[in-house]
Amino acid sequence: MDGYTLTHKTPTKKDFLDTADFDQSEMLDIIKLSRTVRDYIKKGGYLNSLYHKSLAMLFEQKSTRTRVSFEVAMEQLGGHALNLAPGAIQLGKHETIEDTAQVLGRMCDMIMSRVDRHESIEALAKYAKCPVINGMSDRVHPTQGVGDMITIFDHWPAGKESNDVKVVFVGDATQVCNTICEITTKMGMHFVHYGPENHKISDEWLRKGQENARKYGGSAIWSDDPACLFGADFIYTDVWYGLYDKETPKEVYMADFYPKYQVNDELLNATGNPNVKFLHCLPANRNEEVTDSVLDGPHSVAWDEAENRLTAQRGLVLYFGNVAEATLDYIKKGGK
Amino acid sequence: MDGYTLTHKTPTKKDFLDTADFDQSEMLDIIKLSRTVRDYIKKGGYLNSLYHKSLAMLFEQKSTRTRVSFEVAMEQLGGHALNLAPGAIQLGKHETIEDTAQVLGRMCDMIMSRVDRHESIEALAKYAKCPVINGMSDRVHPTQGVGDMITIFDHWPAGKESNDVKVVFVGDATQVCNTICEITTKMGMHFVHYGPENHKISDEWLRKGQENARKYGGSAIWSDDPACLFGADFIYTDVWYGLYDKETPKEVYMADFYPKYQVNDELLNATGNPNVKFLHCLPANRNEEVTDSVLDGPHSVAWDEAENRLTAQRGLVLYFGNVAEATLDYIKKGGK
Amino acid sequence: MDGYTLTHKTPTKKDFLDTADFDQSEMLDIIKLSRTVRDYIKKGGYLNSLYHKSLAMLFEQKSTRTRVSFEVAMEQLGGHALNLAPGAIQLGKHETIEDTAQVLGRMCDMIMSRVDRHESIEALAKYAKCPVINGMSDRVHPTQGVGDMITIFDHWPAGKESNDVKVVFVGDATQVCNTICEITTKMGMHFVHYGPENHKISDEWLRKGQENARKYGGSAIWSDDPACLFGADFIYTDVWYGLYDKETPKEVYMADFYPKYQVNDELLNATGNPNVKFLHCLPANRNEEVTDSVLDGPHSVAWDEAENRLTAQRGLVLYFGNVAEATLDYIKKGGK
Repeated sequence: MDGYTLTHKTPTKKDFLDTADFDQSEMLDIIKLSRTVRDYIKKGGYLNSLYHKSLAMLFEQKSTRTRVSFEVAMEQLGGHALNLAPGAIQLGKHETIEDTAQVLGRMCDMIMSRVDRHESIEALAKYAKCPVINGMSDRVHPTQGVGDMITIFDHWPAGKESNDVKVVFVGDATQVCNTICEITTKMGMHFVHYGPENHKISDEWLRKGQENARKYGGSAIWSDDPACLFGADFIYTDVWYGLYDKETPKEVYMADFYPKYQVNDELLNATGNPNVKFLHCLPANRNEEVTDSVLDGPHSVAWDEAENRLTAQRGLVLYFGNVAEATLDYIKKGGK
Repeated sequence: MDGYTLTHKTPTKKDFLDTADFDQSEMLDIIKLSRTVRDYIKKGGYLNSLYHKSLAMLFEQKSTRTRVSFEVAMEQLGGHALNLAPGAIQLGKHETIEDTAQVLGRMCDMIMSRVDRHESIEALAKYAKCPVINGMSDRVHPTQGVGDMITIFDHWPAGKESNDVKVVFVGDATQVCNTICEITTKMGMHFVHYGPENHKISDEWLRKGQENARKYGGSAIWSDDPACLFGADFIYTDVWYGLYDKETPKEVYMADFYPKYQVNDELLNATGNPNVKFLHCLPANRNEEVTDSVLDGPHSVAWDEAENRLTAQRGLVLYFGNVAEATLDYIKKGGK
Repeated sequence: MDGYTLTHKTPTKKDFLDTADFDQSEMLDIIKLSRTVRDYIKKGGYLNSLYHKSLAMLFEQKSTRTRVSFEVAMEQLGGHALNLAPGAIQLGKHETIEDTAQVLGRMCDMIMSRVDRHESIEALAKYAKCPVINGMSDRVHPTQGVGDMITIFDHWPAGKESNDVKVVFVGDATQVCNTICEITTKMGMHFVHYGPENHKISDEWLRKGQENARKYGGSAIWSDDPACLFGADFIYTDVWYGLYDKETPKEVYMADFYPKYQVNDELLNATGNPNVKFLHCLPANRNEEVTDSVLDGPHSVAWDEAENRLTAQRGLVLYFGNVAEATLDYIKKGGK
């Protein structure tokens, strides 16, 4: 595909709250843009598409990857990211999220936020004049989804079409599971959530996956039968302790998931695919949801996946910052 | 007025601790500079007047508007702001403010600080080799005052002279009240503090206002009679809970202020001015000192006022960073 | 010496964990580079040698000088530093240091970290793909050592050779004491630790100093006899409370050190050197390990020393960022 031409004109004030709000061709535009910019920067190119622009990063929860990747992305594009850490501003104690949104929207060019509850990111988007990006809520993790799809494209199973690719998400139906269900099926792939029934992906999200599947091919199912692992091209997992602000006690989650849903060598073998790849959004609770042998082993692409958070964030701030076409045009002409 | 020529040569090491330390024409220079730079940037202009310069932002208290506006201002001018959050450095536990001032003054080009007690900002200014800006103390909030005066100019009552303009500050005599008394009277306006006697603006600040009034016209009074609201062009209010580090319990402050001093539709009506504007330094405690109907209503210019924090901070860092003339000259010649 | 040519080609992935890992000529390269860049910037020159590059600053402990100097250094060189404050990311609670290292090494161009235990900085260096700089561990404080050596060069005793210069470190054998022993002897100087026997510099570090001394001239000894102060060119001290994360109670450390090891006018007199200089890594616990009269007096170069933290950090990020030669070449050609 031509990396320099997008299907859609990029939006002026459009928010990125959920991959489900975008159709396949829009997601492909963002992915294409992200990969073209990555290749250009890896070859030593510089960009200033967001020169002197500011991204407010508002965190209700701690973050490593989201924080670092957005901050580095903005700086690499000539802009700046403000780290508004949990408890660092008057939000919550002295000011409502609606009022904070109005103020930040007047001073900054874009807002990215990690929130405890999805309603908060919706309020930010409603009250801020500038574009708002969801850096994870209790419902979805859309920027993770974009980075993961880039990683899947980077490690594409040789000779396959989208409709032949199978992604199995193992363990707890976290917000990452919801987003992976949504985005893989939007790309026409086969999605399986393999987990215990009391941690099953919700009917709402399974239905979204199945609607995507009807449109783009592929499928979306839940199963607690290990046979569902067979033929997987990608095995994905996430931690078992649930939401940061109401973590499940270890003895409870171990009883639910261990050992059946641990991604270990045996589980990878059950795919029957010697080239199966392992994904993890990280942080990993080593030797709980994944063994060292898998995370550090030859099937793991988890560190490439972490790096692709940066790849994705550059694409997202360019796209929602409304400078995607200008940037691609600049790169196409040779950049500097 | 010509936006490109200042009355005064800007200072080399001069601190901005209190608007009371500056005369009318200096304040007008800063306001003029701020508005000219805003217009230039709003039209898509770029500046690098503070290229590679660093502003240390030292916070003894949480901040949203002050933090974000200074950080964005520095980045938009080619520089950088370091966020030294409450408890983030060794100040207090392992090091005195005087020693911290000496060190920061050796490494940074400017310091802005929000302090618990005014003595601390004076110590910073005394011991740091570089210019120091007061980002709020228990005594005054001078950067707020500059932004507010810009907002008043932006929403100037049609056809009036300064000596005809009336500003009523309603409620608690906070540090913002002190600064508004000082700066409005310095501009020749009529200032009223309308609040309960046990929260009356101090004689010291009232006297400063009256001295200004003698010099520039206008007046400064305190009153607890609602009749004082009549003829107001601007109604300003602030929260009722007092200083962040020793907040008054809600039942105590409600007994003092509620309902008489709440800014609601009825209070705005008492001004008899259909074009009266409402100001609030924010954060607002909604439906305590101001109702939703006022804050979100047609008289409110509180969100413009928030945005003008950024307008003011750009002017202040340029002025005290000693690059005001060079910047105006660059803009006058067309910039880029 | 020619400030524009280095003896060694700078490394591609090389870490700066300890001055002991580098030989004399490498340390001299870094010092030369640091001083040349300082002079260039002081004269108004600009550099963008680290344009759009990112330094992750990972703090397990609070920091003022290290944090501010690295952040300002990166910005002055066209790059950016991310402040990952204690508790700000998932390190510790949700993620191991090894995994955090892998992730940061994929997103950032360099890592600087202040750690509780030296093992952590070694793990960071091992697992991160990018260069890692030790911003202080419980074992050593190498960036402090570089800044201090620059300060010693700036205040060089007139007419002396390295082998005639004597540095006495007074008080507790902190990590700074270890580094000063190492770096002064590597420069061929005479090092003395003057402190109580139960806070004596370890045999391991004394031995390192003595090995250096055999190679480069000079000497390294410990003594609790005040006679050892005689002839000192530099008196250095540090706080008495030990490691931040396990501070010694005041009554315990005062019994160990006070009054014998307090650096006061009397102790300076005991050097018999009217030009003796006083160094302190700061923060200072005034009137414990040093009196106001000494810290604020004519012998003190402690504030120059603080400023030279910035001088050193610029040199270090250029050197380990592998752009030292290009930068010196640019300056030599006149820069801009």
